[in-house]
Amino acid sequence: MLTLAFSPSGQEPLYQQLYHHIRDEIQAGRLAAGERLPSKRQLARQLKLSVVTIEGAYSQLVTEGYLESRDRKGYFVLPVRWERTTPSPQAAPDIPPLPEERGRFRYDFATSGSDAESFPFATWAKLSREVLSSRDQALLSAAHPQGVPELREAIAHHLYQFRGILVSPEQIIVGAGSEFLSTLLVQLLGPQGGYALEDPGYRKIARIFSASGAQVIPIPLDAHGLRADRLAESGARIVHITPSHHFPLGTVMPVSRRRELLEWAGEREDRYLIEDDYDSEFRFTGRPIPALQGLDRAEKVIYLNTFAKSLAPSLRIGYMVLPPSLLRRYRQELLFYSSTVPSFEQYTLALFMERGHMERHIARTRNRYQQRLAALRQAVRETGLDRFCTLSGGESGLHLLMTVRSPLSQDELTRRAAEAGIRLYPLASYYLCEPHKRAASTFVMGYGKLTETDLQDAFQSLAKIWSF
Amino acid sequence: MLTLAFSPSGQEPLYQQLYHHIRDEIQAGRLAAGERLPSKRQLARQLKLSVVTIEGAYSQLVTEGYLESRDRKGYFVLPVRWERTTPSPQAAPDIPPLPEERGRFRYDFATSGSDAESFPFATWAKLSREVLSSRDQALLSAAHPQGVPELREAIAHHLYQFRGILVSPEQIIVGAGSEFLSTLLVQLLGPQGGYALEDPGYRKIARIFSASGAQVIPIPLDAHGLRADRLAESGARIVHITPSHHFPLGTVMPVSRRRELLEWAGEREDRYLIEDDYDSEFRFTGRPIPALQGLDRAEKVIYLNTFAKSLAPSLRIGYMVLPPSLLRRYRQELLFYSSTVPSFEQYTLALFMERGHMERHIARTRNRYQQRLAALRQAVRETGLDRFCTLSGGESGLHLLMTVRSPLSQDELTRRAAEAGIRLYPLASYYLCEPHKRAASTFVMGYGKLTETDLQDAFQSLAKIWSF
Repeated sequence: MLTLAFSPSGQEPLYQQLYHHIRDEIQAGRLAAGERLPSKRQLARQLKLSVVTIEGAYSQLVTEGYLESRDRKGYFVLPVRWERTTPSPQAAPDIPPLPEERGRFRYDFATSGSDAESFPFATWAKLSREVLSSRDQALLSAAHPQGVPELREAIAHHLYQFRGILVSPEQIIVGAGSEFLSTLLVQLLGPQGGYALEDPGYRKIARIFSASGAQVIPIPLDAHGLRADRLAESGARIVHITPSHHFPLGTVMPVSRRRELLEWAGEREDRYLIEDDYDSEFRFTGRPIPALQGLDRAEKVIYLNTFAKSLAPSLRIGYMVLPPSLLRRYRQELLFYSSTVPSFEQYTLALFMERGHMERHIARTRNRYQQRLAALRQAVRETGLDRFCTLSGGESGLHLLMTVRSPLSQDELTRRAAEAGIRLYPLASYYLCEPHKRAASTFVMGYGKLTETDLQDAFQSLAKIWSF
Repeated sequence: MLTLAFSPSGQEPLYQQLYHHIRDEIQAGRLAAGERLPSKRQLARQLKLSVVTIEGAYSQLVTEGYLESRDRKGYFVLPVRWERTTPSPQAAPDIPPLPEERGRFRYDFATSGSDAESFPFATWAKLSREVLSSRDQALLSAAHPQGVPELREAIAHHLYQFRGILVSPEQIIVGAGSEFLSTLLVQLLGPQGGYALEDPGYRKIARIFSASGAQVIPIPLDAHGLRADRLAESGARIVHITPSHHFPLGTVMPVSRRRELLEWAGEREDRYLIEDDYDSEFRFTGRPIPALQGLDRAEKVIYLNTFAKSLAPSLRIGYMVLPPSLLRRYRQELLFYSSTVPSFEQYTLALFMERGHMERHIARTRNRYQQRLAALRQAVRETGLDRFCTLSGGESGLHLLMTVRSPLSQDELTRRAAEAGIRLYPLASYYLCEPHKRAASTFVMGYGKLTETDLQDAFQSLAKIWSF
C-alpha cells in the first residue's frame, strides 16, 4: 500500500486539489497501474481530511477512468496505456487574427453589402422590443424547421406584391442566408451530375457548390445570358442563373432564353433551375422583370432570395421557394434540420413586413440608390472620365460596369486606384474560365455603400490618376 | 401594320395595363413573331394615350424580350418559341401544412430542448435593448466570418472556466447551430473515407453526415464507449463521439479509451475526432469531466458545442474549436462563407457571457434539473414502479435510461403510454444497426422540459397503465 504526500493549498476545493494531485501522480507514472490506493478512511486520517473529501476525489477519478473500485478490496490504479510526450498546454495557441481589410481603402466599390445608413434602425429596434415583450415563450421554443409561419406568410405576400408570383407559405424555407440555402440545395438535389453556372458570374456560388461536393460547370454567356445551347453537351443537371439582373453584367434574360432553359429542364426529371433573384427589388426603369418562377409549369424552378440587399447583410435571412414535388422530397429527407435563423429575427422581420415597413423601405432605398446612380453618372461626366470610360448595365441593381479605354493596362489602372485609396474589381475576376475579351479593363462598380459625395470624390481621384 | 384594341380600366398604371395587354396578345399568338407594332406616335393617337405611356410599355416589353426595337424601323414581335400548354396559375399551390405534433401528448420525454421557463428572459431582453441602442452600425455590417470577436473571446473564457481547456478566440467558429457546423465540417474534412458514429447514438448526426455526402459507419459500444478496436477494420477516417456523457447511454468515456482514440487518430494525418460536448454543463456529481480536447497534443480533436441546451434551442448559436492546422485549412478554403448568425444575437450573447449571466444561469438551471431528477427518482419509488423499472445513466445531462422488466412488450408499453398522453422513446430507436439486447424495453427519458408535478403525474399514469 502506498502513502500519498499531499499538502492542500490555494482556493480550489480540497477534493479537487486531491483529485488533481492523484491524477498527476498517475499520469507521471509515480502511481503505477495495478497499485492499490489507501482506503478512504486511512487516507482521511493520514491527510487530516474528511472521508467525504477523499470520497469526492476518488469517485471523480473512478468516473474519469484513472481508478477502479473493486468490491471490498479498495481502489486500484488503472493502466494508462499512453505516455504523454508533451506536457499539458499552459497557454492557448498563439494564432494571428485575420488581417483587417477595412480601413485600407477610402472608397470600396465592392458589390456586397448595402447602405447600412438607410436601414430604418429605429423602426427595427421598436419592433424588436415589441417582439421581446410579447413573444417570450415562442422565442424560446424551437422554430418550425421551414421558418416561423408568420414570416413565411409575409414572404409569400411580398413575392406576390413585388415579383408577381403566387406561392404557398408552405413552399418557403427560411434559412441563415442564401449561402447556407445553396449548401442545403446540393443536399436536396444531390451532388451528382454537373452544376452549371453563368461565367462570368457570382464566384462565391461556385465555391459553395464545389465545397458541397458538386462538380461546377462554367457556361459562357451571349447577349441573352447563359447559352442554353451549351447545356446539353455540358452534361449539367442543375443550372444556377440570375435571370432578372445578371451578376455582374446586368443583362436581363429575355423571355425566349427563359423558355429555352425551361425546355431544357423539362427534358429530364432530375434537371432543375435555381433562380437567384438577389437584387430584383432595385430596378430603376419600368416595372420589375417578372421572375422566371412565374413561367414555370413543370415544377423545375427553385426560387432563391435574401434580405441581405434589401435590409442588411448582418441579418442573415434568406429563403427559397421549392416547387411542390421538391418540397415533398425536402420534407421526407431534410426536414430533420432545425431552422437556422433565430426565432427572434424571424418574428421581427415578419412584423416589419406585415406592417408595410419593408415596402416603404424598399421604395426609399430605391430612390436613394437611383440618386447615387445619377451622381455616379454625373461625376463621370463632370470629371471628363466619359472621354475614355463607358458605363453600362446600370438599369437595375446596385452596380454597373465601367469600361476604360486607356493605354494603361487593367492591372495598372487597378494599382493606381488602390494607391489613391480606391478599391476596384476587374470584371475579369468574375470569370471562372478565360475572360471574354470585352472584359479587359472593365470594372464592376458597386455603388450601394457610397454616398454622393464619396462618388464625386472617388471619380475626381480616378480622373487624376488615370490621365494619360 | 397592326391595330391594337385596348381599353384601359382598373387601378394599374396605364403603361402597365398596355404592357400586360400586348404581352398577352403575344403569348396567345394573336400577335405573331415578326409582326410590326404601330409606332409609338401612331398608337398614342389611336388609343388616346400619351407617347410616354406607350414608350413605357414598349421598353418594358423590349427588356423582357417580347419585342425588338429595330433602328428607324419600329418595334417587332420576337419569336416566342415555346407555346404555353397551361394557363398562368391563378392561385398558389395548395399544400397542407406539416401535421402539428405538439398538443398530442400531455408529457413528452424527448431529450431535445430545454426548460424554456428558466431562461432569464428579462435579462436577455435588457441586454438586447442595450445592444440595439449602442451598436447600430456594427449590427448592420456583415459580421466577421468566424463570428464577432467579442463573442469568441467570451466563449474562449467560458471554455477555460467550465471545461478547463485553453483555446484562442481565433480557433473558434461560431455558426447557426451544431447541425450547420457539422455540415461545414464535412466540407472542411472532405466526405471521403468513413465517418464513424457511436451506435447507439445521436441519430440526427448520421442523417447530417449522410446528407452532406459522407459515408456513415456505425461502431458498437462497450462499457467504455465507442470500441476503438473496431475502428481500424472499419476503414473510418473521422469519428464523432460524445465522450463526457454518451448520448443516450450516459457513459463517461474513461481516460484509457480516450487515449486509444487519440492514438488511432494520430496514426494517419487525415484522421480526426469530433468531440460533441452537447450537455457537459449539466453534471450533478463531482466536477465536470475534462474535455477530450484537453488531452490532444497532435491537433486531432475538433471540439463542438452549442448553446441550445444551456440557453434556448431557438437561439441557434453553436461553435466549434479547430486545431491550428485545420484552422489554416478553414481559412484557406472556407472563409468565404459569411457568418450564419445575426450580429445582433452574437453581441447579445457576448454581453450575457461577459457579465457573468451565463455562469449564474447554468448554476441555477443545474440546480433546477437536479431537483427534477430527484423528483423523477422519487416518483418512480413512490408509484411502486421501482419494483420492475430500473434507472441508470443519470449522473449528468438532462436524460436517463429506464429499463422495464415486464411481460408487456416494448411496443405495448410505448403504445399504452401514448394512449395515456405520454410520449416515450425506446432506446432501440437510437441504434443504426441491430439494437443490443440490453436495449429491449429500455426508454430514454429526457426530463429537462418537465416540471416536478409533471413528472409525478406522468409516473403515476405509467404505474397504472403498466401494471400486470
